[in-house]
Amino acid sequence: MRHIYTAFLLLVLTRGIYAQPGDSLMLDRLFRSCMTDTLAYHDLRLLCKDVGPRLSGSAGAEKAVAFAREMLLRCGADTVYLQPCRVPRWIRGEKEIAWMKTPQGAPQPLRVCALGNAVGTGPQGLTAPVVEIRRWEELSALRTGSLKGRIVFFNLPMDPAHYHTFMAYGESGIARRSGPAEAARLGALGVVVRSLASNTDDHPHTGVTQYLDSVPAIPAVALSTRDADRLSQTLALEPGLQLYFRTTCAMLGEVESYNVVGDLRGSAHPERIITVGGHLDSWDLGEGAHDDGAGCVQSAHVLALFRRLSLRPQHTLRAVMFMNEENGGRGGATYAEVAKRKGEEHLFALESDAGAFSPRGFTFEARAEQRYRLQRWASLFRPYGLYDFEGQGSGADIHLLKERGAVLSGLCPDSQRYFDVHHAETDVFEAVSPRELNLGTFAMAALLYLVDTHGL
Amino acid sequence: MRHIYTAFLLLVLTRGIYAQPGDSLMLDRLFRSCMTDTLAYHDLRLLCKDVGPRLSGSAGAEKAVAFAREMLLRCGADTVYLQPCRVPRWIRGEKEIAWMKTPQGAPQPLRVCALGNAVGTGPQGLTAPVVEIRRWEELSALRTGSLKGRIVFFNLPMDPAHYHTFMAYGESGIARRSGPAEAARLGALGVVVRSLASNTDDHPHTGVTQYLDSVPAIPAVALSTRDADRLSQTLALEPGLQLYFRTTCAMLGEVESYNVVGDLRGSAHPERIITVGGHLDSWDLGEGAHDDGAGCVQSAHVLALFRRLSLRPQHTLRAVMFMNEENGGRGGATYAEVAKRKGEEHLFALESDAGAFSPRGFTFEARAEQRYRLQRWASLFRPYGLYDFEGQGSGADIHLLKERGAVLSGLCPDSQRYFDVHHAETDVFEAVSPRELNLGTFAMAALLYLVDTHGL
Repeated sequence: MRHIYTAFLLLVLTRGIYAQPGDSLMLDRLFRSCMTDTLAYHDLRLLCKDVGPRLSGSAGAEKAVAFAREMLLRCGADTVYLQPCRVPRWIRGEKEIAWMKTPQGAPQPLRVCALGNAVGTGPQGLTAPVVEIRRWEELSALRTGSLKGRIVFFNLPMDPAHYHTFMAYGESGIARRSGPAEAARLGALGVVVRSLASNTDDHPHTGVTQYLDSVPAIPAVALSTRDADRLSQTLALEPGLQLYFRTTCAMLGEVESYNVVGDLRGSAHPERIITVGGHLDSWDLGEGAHDDGAGCVQSAHVLALFRRLSLRPQHTLRAVMFMNEENGGRGGATYAEVAKRKGEEHLFALESDAGAFSPRGFTFEARAEQRYRLQRWASLFRPYGLYDFEGQGSGADIHLLKERGAVLSGLCPDSQRYFDVHHAETDVFEAVSPRELNLGTFAMAALLYLVDTHGL
Repeated sequence: MRHIYTAFLLLVLTRGIYAQPGDSLMLDRLFRSCMTDTLAYHDLRLLCKDVGPRLSGSAGAEKAVAFAREMLLRCGADTVYLQPCRVPRWIRGEKEIAWMKTPQGAPQPLRVCALGNAVGTGPQGLTAPVVEIRRWEELSALRTGSLKGRIVFFNLPMDPAHYHTFMAYGESGIARRSGPAEAARLGALGVVVRSLASNTDDHPHTGVTQYLDSVPAIPAVALSTRDADRLSQTLALEPGLQLYFRTTCAMLGEVESYNVVGDLRGSAHPERIITVGGHLDSWDLGEGAHDDGAGCVQSAHVLALFRRLSLRPQHTLRAVMFMNEENGGRGGATYAEVAKRKGEEHLFALESDAGAFSPRGFTFEARAEQRYRLQRWASLFRPYGLYDFEGQGSGADIHLLKERGAVLSGLCPDSQRYFDVHHAETDVFEAVSPRELNLGTFAMAALLYLVDTHGL
């Protein structure tokens, strides 16, 4: 009897002290359940192979909405609903054609794809001499009209000397995002951008460009990295080279689409919301496996994992598959607008939109004291290869929730291979490792479990 | 004048204190040089595509020796030489054939490959009923002779709930390593082992098995994971199922081969040696890209990197391409024997033989105080994604150098994808990311720079 009493006393006394070991045991349960699961990978296969590419406003996007709804129901959400949002409908049109031609030589084909949201050249295509720009700063030395009648070739490789490839993407990405508008301001007829890729291959990488109201919208394509090197070398020898490209892409106006939302209702504070999400739309060239089928599947399967382990969250855990991240951001904007209109209370939001590679940590947007609290949990994640809790940032679809007072976070997978496949036809199901996909789901579920259990 | 004097005094006073910032700047130089290099990846292409598979004693291994010598010379080694070692010559023979046949059904083909060093069935092949073993412990309940006339099917999947896949490989690997010998002891005619793979696909994974002198050597093959699942399911329904397999592999005796060694002579202590290496031989099914072409190329390019940055090591930095790691370990044994015979002084040895994925850290075999010193450097590696300096172990080719007093270390890449391709025909050049390969070279060079500069 005395032993039992002592044991009971010890239990009472040590409960507060040993919250940490309890968490670590729970993380181990989440990990084991996640790593032995095959359903998330199967769902990614269905999304990639049966639904396929799903650019906003396309038939694929419509199929994706239906699929996401089904997946959330299968994953055990209490309530699943579609949240309407208007999205732009841009179409690629016919397969793009491009070649370069030196004064003496025959035309040599180049592998290109139209940039997202770009205008087309029309059926005749566009032929012009080329000016190569190798550093963005070169533009500031040019006067208005100095690129008149030219095609501008932005040849800004991603800097390999950034450990985090997203840094290199951000830097060189200015050419794709703002190159066409800036070139038009200086009189150019069209733009060819070196693909934003960290490897050298034959696949052009698409991605959105942004026109300005003040200058004409001019056609713009991305060129595979190998062809960008080839074009640059040829230009050095033959400055009189002519470039031709033909695109029939077009912006067709807006159509109705949806975010897909699934709630696991909170047991203690159902009115306080924790959002976990990825984006459902993808570019049309690949299958949107890493970008961002993985994030959608992981978010839905965070709910499935809570269900499987009979973990009822205290706050409402909501998985959201956002529409139109790639070429408009309407899904994220709509979600934040509705939250504001309804006066929703958002505690935390986590997005997975950086690929399904081995997770390395999380970024956060939070006040200093919240950040310290989050970083105290880092040691719990070390046994699973997550060590970096210091980065700033979150996700494109959730960042507006900051206005609702939410702490924001982004999953940080290993970024070394991401820009090999990002926005290209190589972003397919086969490029995803089931273990790495599951590790991401685990990491997300673990962080949300800790936030739900201990608050911020 | 007074300012100059103060500056000089400050410089003198702070040199000791600021060794750390100097190191971090040097690591940054190593990193930048490594990440902008394309030659290491090119060398891996040559080794995989031009040399190709290179099992000990094969023509491929001979080509590999010549290639490694050339590579080390190109990388700037002062002295390059071949170190003779005798190796076993095992051949796979004709393409393996296997099928299963239920009493009523037609034979269904199975994808198998002979285990390394195994005896063949002979041209007739082997047909027998099957006993499935799902846990190694089941064997201990069986009496001698109880598997008489049977083929034993070891169906031990790698446990997905190990974060470090090498743990799962070690556990389930007992079936491949010791299964044929144990099954023979109990009277079995042959063995089929589930491939040691962390994914589910159609590629059998080979690897060495070890016979015992006390029991007959019986034929043994590995079965693809998908076919292992199929065989297991079929057996559950049809216990009377017959299995057939045919292998013509054979051990042909010993031949002469070589380790390939390249020295960068130490400026202050040329007699003290720091070894960095990988193994040059590979299994015959793929191209030995991750296992271990990468380790060889990285080791050679550590020397190239020192040369490129005009870093002359204080100790002799020696890159070694070991022969016969896969099916004999003779290269490693010879290297240690020669070191002993010559009375060489070995300070440190580092092996890269765990794939060319993003490096996560290093393992060590060292005394406690040396380990603490090594772990103090961990923070220098954090900006490059290496955080784990706590694991025990080193590499199969260098572990005997412990007797020479050397501190040992192994590069630890992310292990999630390694056993998808390990020892299978999928271990090809295309499975390696150039960035991840270079990150490994950088990490190795950085650790060796610190060891060389600060000692242990």
